[in-house]
Amino acid sequence: MSSLHLLSLLFLLSSFPVLTTPSPTYPQFLGRFSHRKKPTQTNSNAYSYETRYYTQQLDHFSFIGDTLGLGGDSHFQQRYLLGSTDKWARPGGPIFFYCGNEGDIVWFSENTGFVWEIAPRFNALVVFAEHRYYGESMPYGSKEAAYSSAKSLAHLTSAQALADYATLIVDLKRNMSSQDSPVVLFGGSYAGMLAAWMRLKYPHIVIGALASSAPILQFDDIVPADTFYNIVSNDFKRESESCFNSIKKSWDVLEAEGKDQNGLLKLTKTFRICHTLNNTGDLLDWIDSAYSYLGMVDYPYPSDFLMPLPANPIKEVCRHMDDDSDGKTLAERIYAGVNVYYNYTGNYTCFDLDDDPHGMNGWQWQACTEMIMPLASNPESSMFPPYDFSFADREYECHMTYNVSIRPHWITTEFGGHNISTVLKKFGSNIIFSNGLLDPWSGGGVLQNISESIIALVAPLGAHHIDLRPSTDEDPDWLVNFREAEINIIESWLSDYYHAIGTFSSVLSDRSDHTGTSSR
Amino acid sequence: MSSLHLLSLLFLLSSFPVLTTPSPTYPQFLGRFSHRKKPTQTNSNAYSYETRYYTQQLDHFSFIGDTLGLGGDSHFQQRYLLGSTDKWARPGGPIFFYCGNEGDIVWFSENTGFVWEIAPRFNALVVFAEHRYYGESMPYGSKEAAYSSAKSLAHLTSAQALADYATLIVDLKRNMSSQDSPVVLFGGSYAGMLAAWMRLKYPHIVIGALASSAPILQFDDIVPADTFYNIVSNDFKRESESCFNSIKKSWDVLEAEGKDQNGLLKLTKTFRICHTLNNTGDLLDWIDSAYSYLGMVDYPYPSDFLMPLPANPIKEVCRHMDDDSDGKTLAERIYAGVNVYYNYTGNYTCFDLDDDPHGMNGWQWQACTEMIMPLASNPESSMFPPYDFSFADREYECHMTYNVSIRPHWITTEFGGHNISTVLKKFGSNIIFSNGLLDPWSGGGVLQNISESIIALVAPLGAHHIDLRPSTDEDPDWLVNFREAEINIIESWLSDYYHAIGTFSSVLSDRSDHTGTSSR
Repeated sequence: MSSLHLLSLLFLLSSFPVLTTPSPTYPQFLGRFSHRKKPTQTNSNAYSYETRYYTQQLDHFSFIGDTLGLGGDSHFQQRYLLGSTDKWARPGGPIFFYCGNEGDIVWFSENTGFVWEIAPRFNALVVFAEHRYYGESMPYGSKEAAYSSAKSLAHLTSAQALADYATLIVDLKRNMSSQDSPVVLFGGSYAGMLAAWMRLKYPHIVIGALASSAPILQFDDIVPADTFYNIVSNDFKRESESCFNSIKKSWDVLEAEGKDQNGLLKLTKTFRICHTLNNTGDLLDWIDSAYSYLGMVDYPYPSDFLMPLPANPIKEVCRHMDDDSDGKTLAERIYAGVNVYYNYTGNYTCFDLDDDPHGMNGWQWQACTEMIMPLASNPESSMFPPYDFSFADREYECHMTYNVSIRPHWITTEFGGHNISTVLKKFGSNIIFSNGLLDPWSGGGVLQNISESIIALVAPLGAHHIDLRPSTDEDPDWLVNFREAEINIIESWLSDYYHAIGTFSSVLSDRSDHTGTSSR
Repeated sequence: MSSLHLLSLLFLLSSFPVLTTPSPTYPQFLGRFSHRKKPTQTNSNAYSYETRYYTQQLDHFSFIGDTLGLGGDSHFQQRYLLGSTDKWARPGGPIFFYCGNEGDIVWFSENTGFVWEIAPRFNALVVFAEHRYYGESMPYGSKEAAYSSAKSLAHLTSAQALADYATLIVDLKRNMSSQDSPVVLFGGSYAGMLAAWMRLKYPHIVIGALASSAPILQFDDIVPADTFYNIVSNDFKRESESCFNSIKKSWDVLEAEGKDQNGLLKLTKTFRICHTLNNTGDLLDWIDSAYSYLGMVDYPYPSDFLMPLPANPIKEVCRHMDDDSDGKTLAERIYAGVNVYYNYTGNYTCFDLDDDPHGMNGWQWQACTEMIMPLASNPESSMFPPYDFSFADREYECHMTYNVSIRPHWITTEFGGHNISTVLKKFGSNIIFSNGLLDPWSGGGVLQNISESIIALVAPLGAHHIDLRPSTDEDPDWLVNFREAEINIIESWLSDYYHAIGTFSSVLSDRSDHTGTSSR
């Protein structure tokens, strides 16, 4: 596993073939190996909304935009999806607000069925807001312009994104004459971090946050850097010790094979790579990407989040890897396993490792500026090749790529993380940190209650923000109950709020008339 | 009272003759009428410190500085005063950190004796940090460069200043190997706002804040706009009803006199103005500035904060205004009153209304961007000329001056203020809001307890952050007790903190060995 590769571990994938500009050769992203389709609104009939745009300030924390022009625009159009107001208890009814993450908001809205499903139980208005520099919410008029340089990317930061959401909420409530509406935030993964941080930073704007699979502690030295890969490794070991061992052994074997005469050609064939490999590293990156993502999407039912996959996909991967009935080589068994991830539908006849469509991945920038999340692979416990994280390496790499300096301690300075339970025991309230322990990001999550109202909900068998996904008929009981617990907590926030402002809310009183599809 | 004039009401004065550039003709500042001396370290022998400089990020919330150069520097030198570490209980001993406000930090440190005086009781390290764009903490290498344009001033914002303090504290603790040190913030006036906001935004960095005379509610429509001038008016009425009435009547009388033949010349003579008046407005601004500042510094003992003044200066002003023994005209009596404020020492033979030494007042910029604090004068209750506040006027004026757009709702979006007691009842902790009711800024202060640990301390006879001033032999008992209450609360924060982290603090155990000079 190369350092370049580790740099690029992002939560979700945001590589849509929107524009084609020359790709930077560095850094490579897991995202490029995801062949999922561009989101379309045809999928989202279940969720009724209007697409709207809000004229957003590019820089909330300085007035430089007013004076420099900055390519002619100190504002940009932020897209948001405004759910139907038909059943919204206006004025004063709740607003359920999803903090967009690093990708197209339509796609996130489709994969966050929980919010849509529970909103009717609260007569709540649903809003999905897109994160700046993703999807259609592009400064400077186009993705090409926004991603053209470090200068144009400069305002892609988390604090600016939070200020976008704050500004949008205030404006939305004012325009809908519903200033008393309590706002509950939702977010999964990076968006879960944003939701938690926003509740901490803007308690006057949002009354609570459900932060799902939010690794807000994956910074500095708060958690051991090897946690992520240990969890992925354990996900495999749990299904099959021999599968874990095969993978752990495979790196050296593949490396050695690549050095043989015609080795790269052989590996190219074994792994159905479209273009002959130039080096083994590209292949190994492609393989270990699959494992990490499998850890994230190891859902108990068939899903199509990052890729179309069967239920319990790691079990399925390991079933293939453990199957040596035909006298398969280790390389062939590894291929059979990762093929489950990359080609479960069987649509691909070969794989293109160079298909980064445009090299304009915003997370790449964020990982080179603020989002310095140390990840390492410890040979004692990990099935991945050994790797030590180093701030200096990251600094060097990012300087080469963007000519910016990383700010490795900024996130913990701005948002905290160290000694979080002491800090927040008597400060802050109304946050649910939900985590599934199969999810490698849970290692950086908050796994213990901090106070009476800063709650950790932990699902031993959950993967990456499974609670936010649309309900299915195959949802296990624990998941149904997990969501019900979240709903009850959110209800208590709303109830407290309405009591505090002295308004009797018809919203909450007729909750029993509605049943969300998330309960069976 | 002109709209231009009201725009410029700032807490404190920061017009040091540092550099001379052409003054903008607009807006005028109360500050220019303050003849107080440039701060010198000769005054501060009582407080032992080193002057240090920290290389500070110009823009914490974007990476534009890295890419644009921005005049060649994305960093600047932030000055801070580091108190003696001789008696600091290192490692882990408390740090008392003053959030600098809109002026030279040496001057603030001299006028904030409370922090110096109580630090030994806690074996605490004292730090006074200067606010960016004030004193010596100038981006772009000099005040002239920093104040040369709206572009260079763009990063003079409150959120950037808070991030400066956060970054400085984190770095300071790391460099002194004292990461466990609890940090308590202090601030008066604008700095009090910063202290309160910082405790809310950075609870992981500071354990509590004493926010003295911090009008964090003086934004939007949270408090009535006429509160400030009503309080000043009542300060005068309380001393003398006839004094109040004289002042209230005087505006029309002086206006009329100015229109008489040779009227401006007569007024010039009556008021000892050095250069013949061009219009009556300048004179009226000069006069009403005195009243507002007198409301702020109406201390019960002789002081030299904004100007050298006797004890209870409003009483003294009114004594002169009410004295018509020599058959003085109203104008002469008004002069006799304001002369107490402007010339108590008798050093001036005439007053220069155009002595704005450089027109580079940072608060002027802040009042044209974020710090939109509506102030109005209501003829029903105010002794000042009637005046309505208007966002549109402010926008127009600031656009003319700086070519920037005001962000009138930004402060409440970023920091809150509306429904503060509901919002913070179960969120946040460890803030003291102290206010004196003689202080006109108390109208925008938090005057009621919000929770068990967000406390309002109110001194009916206190003026602008009197609690933070150096103790004197003339301190009334209520003031001694008031400070003692603050000390006890701060002690409880520290005690809670040390218990929470499980460290027994020798600091707190030997408190009884020390007696601060603030107790008698």
